[in-house]
Amino acid sequence: MTIKKTDKTSITRLSKRGVYDEASIYAILDDALVCTIAFVQDNEPFQIPTGFCRIGDQLYIHGSVGSHYMRHLAEHKSKVCISVMHIDGLVLARSAFHHSVNYRSVVMFSEAVRVDDKEEIYQSLEVFTNKMQPGRWADVRKPTDNEWKATMVLKFKIEEASAKVRTGAPKDDEEDYNLPIWAGVVPLQVERKAPIVDPEMKLSVPLPEYLKYARD
Amino acid sequence: MTIKKTDKTSITRLSKRGVYDEASIYAILDDALVCTIAFVQDNEPFQIPTGFCRIGDQLYIHGSVGSHYMRHLAEHKSKVCISVMHIDGLVLARSAFHHSVNYRSVVMFSEAVRVDDKEEIYQSLEVFTNKMQPGRWADVRKPTDNEWKATMVLKFKIEEASAKVRTGAPKDDEEDYNLPIWAGVVPLQVERKAPIVDPEMKLSVPLPEYLKYARD
Repeated sequence: MTIKKTDKTSITRLSKRGVYDEASIYAILDDALVCTIAFVQDNEPFQIPTGFCRIGDQLYIHGSVGSHYMRHLAEHKSKVCISVMHIDGLVLARSAFHHSVNYRSVVMFSEAVRVDDKEEIYQSLEVFTNKMQPGRWADVRKPTDNEWKATMVLKFKIEEASAKVRTGAPKDDEEDYNLPIWAGVVPLQVERKAPIVDPEMKLSVPLPEYLKYARD
Repeated sequence: MTIKKTDKTSITRLSKRGVYDEASIYAILDDALVCTIAFVQDNEPFQIPTGFCRIGDQLYIHGSVGSHYMRHLAEHKSKVCISVMHIDGLVLARSAFHHSVNYRSVVMFSEAVRVDDKEEIYQSLEVFTNKMQPGRWADVRKPTDNEWKATMVLKFKIEEASAKVRTGAPKDDEEDYNLPIWAGVVPLQVERKAPIVDPEMKLSVPLPEYLKYARD
């Protein structure tokens, strides 16, 4: 068990929505393509939305060695706050006040560590690519030495983290249930649509099996 | 024209993706249900994902007067960095290195201002509710005096902001176009599914017209 509940990660507002177990936190992270990374520079807040993947208790991001913020995080071993958020539905209550959304979010606090080990960099990019599109890594041209050298990978230990989750129907005030107002949930879902082939394809290559899940 | 391009908002990495015009920035903001708000507390980075709406050149959030972070932002007139991110597609290139996503993001820097004017608070909640679900505000029970008093609204001027956008097909290295690898884009789209009525409905109320867009 690597998750620590601290003052910074304890949910104080609507505390019943707080979730602290590793499996739930990992599942919410793994379901997200991007996170936002907040850090402090010259006493001011910055944040960057970026892709990521998780391997064990580490969250990995990658970018160019020329990226300002990657270099800043690496050089300063910066403290960061990382969040991911899924919106699963609009919660339409009878009262404006009780309108809400169903969501799953994670907020974690960590520090940037530059990954220098070549095997670890390779593995993180493979996991990252296959997270984005399962089956893709085996199918594509692998990075050249120059491409590897142009890539910076940072990792963040997932240790001080918590999740917050809301599910289900609206909760209205008792007397409002008698109002003639429709109430319920509009589910939201991120859907993968039918793949669009690159118009610059020179060869006729059939759609790979791993992309055939997609529908229009 | 209220948008200023500054050192902090100039896109340095892949600068051709930088977008600085007000209309584009507003459209990306308006298309998002949630943003993340980063701020500094005790020299450490924090961030909160939260719903928001835009009215003119102001971004509004609301929360409970009991919320720690809302109170912190209000009391310190905190500097913030706010971001929103849409992922519009997976960009599957021939090489692992050129894999990407199509996205629209905004990053802005601003300062928290507590809204005390009652009319402005009312307007922001109406816009917020109708952004979440067009047509909803006219249909629901409006806030009571006690509910208004329990609600804190903060606003942030949209002034120092930039967007970053990627669209279209993969860009591969010239020689890779001859490889027998499928390349293209998998579009991602957030879909509203068929509304689920609250099982606690006491009265039989038909689905409102404004919810009939939804499909399964």
